[in-house]
Amino acid sequence: MLMYDVIEKKKQKEALSREEIEFWVKGVTSGEIPDYQSAALLMAICINGMNEEETVILTEAMRDSGEKADLSCYGGKAVDKHSTGGVGDKTSLVVLPLVVSLGCIGAKMSGRALGHTGGTVDKLESIPGYCTELSEQEFRDVVASQGIAIVGQSGNFAPADKKLYALRDVTATVDCVPLIASSIMSKKLAAGADIIVLDVKCGSGAFMKTYDDARTLADCMVSIGKGCGKKCAAIISDMDVPLGQAIGCALEVKEAVKLLRNDKGCEELSDLRENCLKLAENIVSLCFDMPLEEARRRCEENLINGKAFETFCGWIKAQGGDLSFLEDIDSFCKAEYCGEYKAKKSGMITKMNTESIGKAGVVLGAGRLRKGDPIDFSAGLIICRKTGDNVKEGEVIAKLYSSVKNDFSEAEELLDGAIEIE
Amino acid sequence: MLMYDVIEKKKQKEALSREEIEFWVKGVTSGEIPDYQSAALLMAICINGMNEEETVILTEAMRDSGEKADLSCYGGKAVDKHSTGGVGDKTSLVVLPLVVSLGCIGAKMSGRALGHTGGTVDKLESIPGYCTELSEQEFRDVVASQGIAIVGQSGNFAPADKKLYALRDVTATVDCVPLIASSIMSKKLAAGADIIVLDVKCGSGAFMKTYDDARTLADCMVSIGKGCGKKCAAIISDMDVPLGQAIGCALEVKEAVKLLRNDKGCEELSDLRENCLKLAENIVSLCFDMPLEEARRRCEENLINGKAFETFCGWIKAQGGDLSFLEDIDSFCKAEYCGEYKAKKSGMITKMNTESIGKAGVVLGAGRLRKGDPIDFSAGLIICRKTGDNVKEGEVIAKLYSSVKNDFSEAEELLDGAIEIE
Repeated sequence: MLMYDVIEKKKQKEALSREEIEFWVKGVTSGEIPDYQSAALLMAICINGMNEEETVILTEAMRDSGEKADLSCYGGKAVDKHSTGGVGDKTSLVVLPLVVSLGCIGAKMSGRALGHTGGTVDKLESIPGYCTELSEQEFRDVVASQGIAIVGQSGNFAPADKKLYALRDVTATVDCVPLIASSIMSKKLAAGADIIVLDVKCGSGAFMKTYDDARTLADCMVSIGKGCGKKCAAIISDMDVPLGQAIGCALEVKEAVKLLRNDKGCEELSDLRENCLKLAENIVSLCFDMPLEEARRRCEENLINGKAFETFCGWIKAQGGDLSFLEDIDSFCKAEYCGEYKAKKSGMITKMNTESIGKAGVVLGAGRLRKGDPIDFSAGLIICRKTGDNVKEGEVIAKLYSSVKNDFSEAEELLDGAIEIE
Repeated sequence: MLMYDVIEKKKQKEALSREEIEFWVKGVTSGEIPDYQSAALLMAICINGMNEEETVILTEAMRDSGEKADLSCYGGKAVDKHSTGGVGDKTSLVVLPLVVSLGCIGAKMSGRALGHTGGTVDKLESIPGYCTELSEQEFRDVVASQGIAIVGQSGNFAPADKKLYALRDVTATVDCVPLIASSIMSKKLAAGADIIVLDVKCGSGAFMKTYDDARTLADCMVSIGKGCGKKCAAIISDMDVPLGQAIGCALEVKEAVKLLRNDKGCEELSDLRENCLKLAENIVSLCFDMPLEEARRRCEENLINGKAFETFCGWIKAQGGDLSFLEDIDSFCKAEYCGEYKAKKSGMITKMNTESIGKAGVVLGAGRLRKGDPIDFSAGLIICRKTGDNVKEGEVIAKLYSSVKNDFSEAEELLDGAIEIE
């Protein structure tokens, strides 16, 4: 087989066969196919598309290009939840303990913050003692005792996807639904869960800006998941405003705890609560073949009766976390410097550019622009007012936190551009 | 400017600006833009196209990427003729002396044989003594005294095209009209002629298989030529049968001489004669702003009265060629081994695959598969019968020549597949 002929075929808008797609992915993994040939094929795919069958085959080929986690010992109850990336998205910290308290298994690897979006592993590391690097035995022990463990990504999962993603990133071939979907799903499938529920974000803070685009991506990923023999569902959720109020590692952990504990003030987190319940009800419904309404009822129950929080505590402790921070959560990981972003005029907030708000968080130290950059756990924002709220001139819209710098002007400038009052 | 944005724009079917195209071509020339980015852009161009303005800009940018010949001293009379590549195409050997005998200037660089198509420089080298490598001063001296000189390609013309062509060749991005046209025209324009006449071949032995495709390419090249301020015209000519009878270096030189001298038997070369006259009338018409009919009359005149042949002799001699081969042209460069390809049955020849016939020539030693391979000047074929002719079983359809091997079976096999009798 010649790579030239594979490229030519896709250029002519024809569907590629299993043999052709596997030939390509194997050649990418081994390095035998040069980047310029892959770049030409990626562009042809971007413009001419891929059908459902091709997309499933591509996903399987990338999944099979490296190591795979084996979660088969958990009797089909291993669940995974994936968000396409948002601002203030701390749902994993709530959803996983919640569904595990109902009998699911949450043996999960999570990512780190990059660009304007956060990462669960960074958030967990803000808890003193919490260890995100466990040996396989330690990981299995924690899952055995608690039903849940979350560690950082390790292992050589889907290396073909890694290489192709790096190439897409520099050849303007990122925004193509079959390529996005197969990239995400190849990693999720390699991670071994039996049940995968996807949270596709949509709006100004998300990669998918419109509902229709998010729907298309969600449908494509679910069809891949099912095509690969998994139980799979997706929800579309709004990212035209940050999720909840907190943006930043420790701030988000505190907010998740508030929700899990039903602390005073958690009624202001209704959007976050609803997002968590939607995801959880889908996971539980798929895991126990239960109607959504029944799953919803059980999830709400365990969120209120404290069982989800109990699971959270057991899990954090089992991974080495020091739970004493729960005793006085307000003073946990408090930033040295604090600022206030105030409304420049009276009126209604008509728009929030969530990506810019995420970038303000990065500027404060809560995120990273490049892999490996350090993170200030205490840094971030609390968004007090959102789109639709009426504000008076001088009223606080957001609180800004940093432990390394006492200058908020750069973040404020970003917020000026991000928040419209009319 | 970022190459990423240029690729993205073309992916979105937008037209690229002069700045963007020049940025790309300069980056290709300097090596700063990696092949994978160019490959992605080339594929986007292949699928989404380029408008006339973009194509002219791309051509100019590639033309300006390296050296350029200056033929301005010839007062606007420097002519060039380009064929898109055919089998048995010895028109340059006839057309250039013909138009030069009428006052045009033919200061030309020509290519070498590759694949199933021949090259003028190889044909000329079959004439003992003819030198295809002249210093610039020698070249100008020959042109000054004879009005014509043909040498091999030297100089670093359109290096960006060379790099992009090599990349297109391995990324399935060759067959795209704006890319083909700009590639050809960038080299022609760098070669400096004021008048460019193109011979776009069409049919089984040509790159363009259908008349419509050939027409599109011809129109595109003429619009580029005019857009770059040149006098330019194109003809479409049939390559569903070889042009003339001879295929192979010395065989083709002999055939050209036959036509220029009006030798006995040259009435069988009517297709070649007509092709040469069409090209010549276009060149002369553009050069002297003369109606086509008048140009045609003069061309026919100088072909018959021997003036074109006179110019041919003066030119060959001035470039060191030994003209004594003209005295007994039948024994010139005669092959040691000779075979006959005979009709396997009686009937009419309904089809000839000219590319396969060209490949039979290569197998006999008349061409080369890889750059730098040696050529057997005496080798080749004489096609005695063509499509539309009735043949009897055992009648000679082609004569085969080689001076290095006495085994014609491989060539015969190719001819078996190439020639249909019904």
